Amino acid sequence: MTGWLAIAGLGPGDAALVTPEVSAALAEATDVLGYARYVARVPSREGLALHPSENRMELQRAEEALRLAAAGRRVVIVSSGDPGVFAMAAAVFEALEGAPELQNIPIRVLPGVTAMLAAAARAGAPLGHDFCAINLSDNLKPWPLIEKRLRLAAEADFAIAMYNPRSASRPEGFARVLDILKQAGCGHRLIIFAHAVTTPNERIEMVSLDEARPNMADMATLVILGNSATRRVGRWVYAPRRAS
Amino acid sequence: MTGWLAIAGLGPGDAALVTPEVSAALAEATDVLGYARYVARVPSREGLALHPSENRMELQRAEEALRLAAAGRRVVIVSSGDPGVFAMAAAVFEALEGAPELQNIPIRVLPGVTAMLAAAARAGAPLGHDFCAINLSDNLKPWPLIEKRLRLAAEADFAIAMYNPRSASRPEGFARVLDILKQAGCGHRLIIFAHAVTTPNERIEMVSLDEARPNMADMATLVILGNSATRRVGRWVYAPRRAS
Repeated sequence: MTGWLAIAGLGPGDAALVTPEVSAALAEATDVLGYARYVARVPSREGLALHPSENRMELQRAEEALRLAAAGRRVVIVSSGDPGVFAMAAAVFEALEGAPELQNIPIRVLPGVTAMLAAAARAGAPLGHDFCAINLSDNLKPWPLIEKRLRLAAEADFAIAMYNPRSASRPEGFARVLDILKQAGCGHRLIIFAHAVTTPNERIEMVSLDEARPNMADMATLVILGNSATRRVGRWVYAPRRAS
Repeated sequence: MTGWLAIAGLGPGDAALVTPEVSAALAEATDVLGYARYVARVPSREGLALHPSENRMELQRAEEALRLAAAGRRVVIVSSGDPGVFAMAAAVFEALEGAPELQNIPIRVLPGVTAMLAAAARAGAPLGHDFCAINLSDNLKPWPLIEKRLRLAAEADFAIAMYNPRSASRPEGFARVLDILKQAGCGHRLIIFAHAVTTPNERIEMVSLDEARPNMADMATLVILGNSATRRVGRWVYAPRRAS
């Protein structure tokens, strides 16, 4: 038996957003690894070993997945959303770099609907024009780099999708993010808080940045700041295609 | 019968990347509208009217879809990839803004796997750190704005996903894009050309920006410039999670 590793995105939460490609990989798998909350979304069945692990164990999880695949298992690592956006794919390649003897293992990355796309769809089309995606967690990068990117993104008039807005370890960081964006002249722009998007707990709020409060976001919230032209039509928000 | 409109993303090409949510909407539809190449991806069946139209007819197509839904039809507008990323969702809301009498039509935006996620998955994980997405077409925005965004994105050290790199009407534009990014100090960064990703014609090339040639891209190519830390491991390319 030849082992393999698939790094799969489960989408934002709704089972109707899991691609058939990912469902097929899960159906063939012998082992599924991932953060416990995401592994819990995989239906259990005979012959499938589930390996839930804690958050921030990404590199160890990736190494274990590679070892299992090398031993002939058919392994799926699951992320929510897309595995390539602030998720497990980068951790697997980091682990692979440290284990050259494993570089012949068949690996596939199976894309998914990342949270910003689902959040944008619920709100309308705030990512219909040029945009950027910034991970606000400072676990793995210095805070000044986050601030620099926010300022440059505002100057470029990108819509800005913000992942992981509020961490338990640094709850004051997101208040600072809102302040920086206001100082950059974005106060009148629309901002969208998409909480637990596509799940039964979904809640979408849209206000101007000047009206936004830090506690509108938690770790299950995806935040999108519109660009300067983004506007409302009925209950929707969209970025006009035309820019000047 | 109550009409409705769904704005759906078909993913990058492979049927295994069409979400079950989109497949369900297509199964219930009476009418499908879209650019002819995308409508051709929808299986025909009795009771389903297909309305292919030409490129650059986005606003007229959106208005027709709204009129059909108002008349009680169950309408799906299809885009490739995700409908909210440089695709039909923004055009529908623009049309809706011009037709307040239609604002009670039930509308849903159904997200999909946009091209940059599929391209990144084939290459490894080049979008595993902060990134931006820029539409290089200057149909709907002035060229100097594209240049400004490229320079700021390079300064922010974003990975840069570039949609519509080469238009028939402005083939020299992409050569200028490569020059701007080299002048911005990105010459040693890795760049990925993902042609017709997830289709039988898929072709992925990875070189340094200094080695890149404009004719590596056509209109079916999604281009990703890595950030300054992006590197190879075996046949893969990834953005390290950690930044300094």
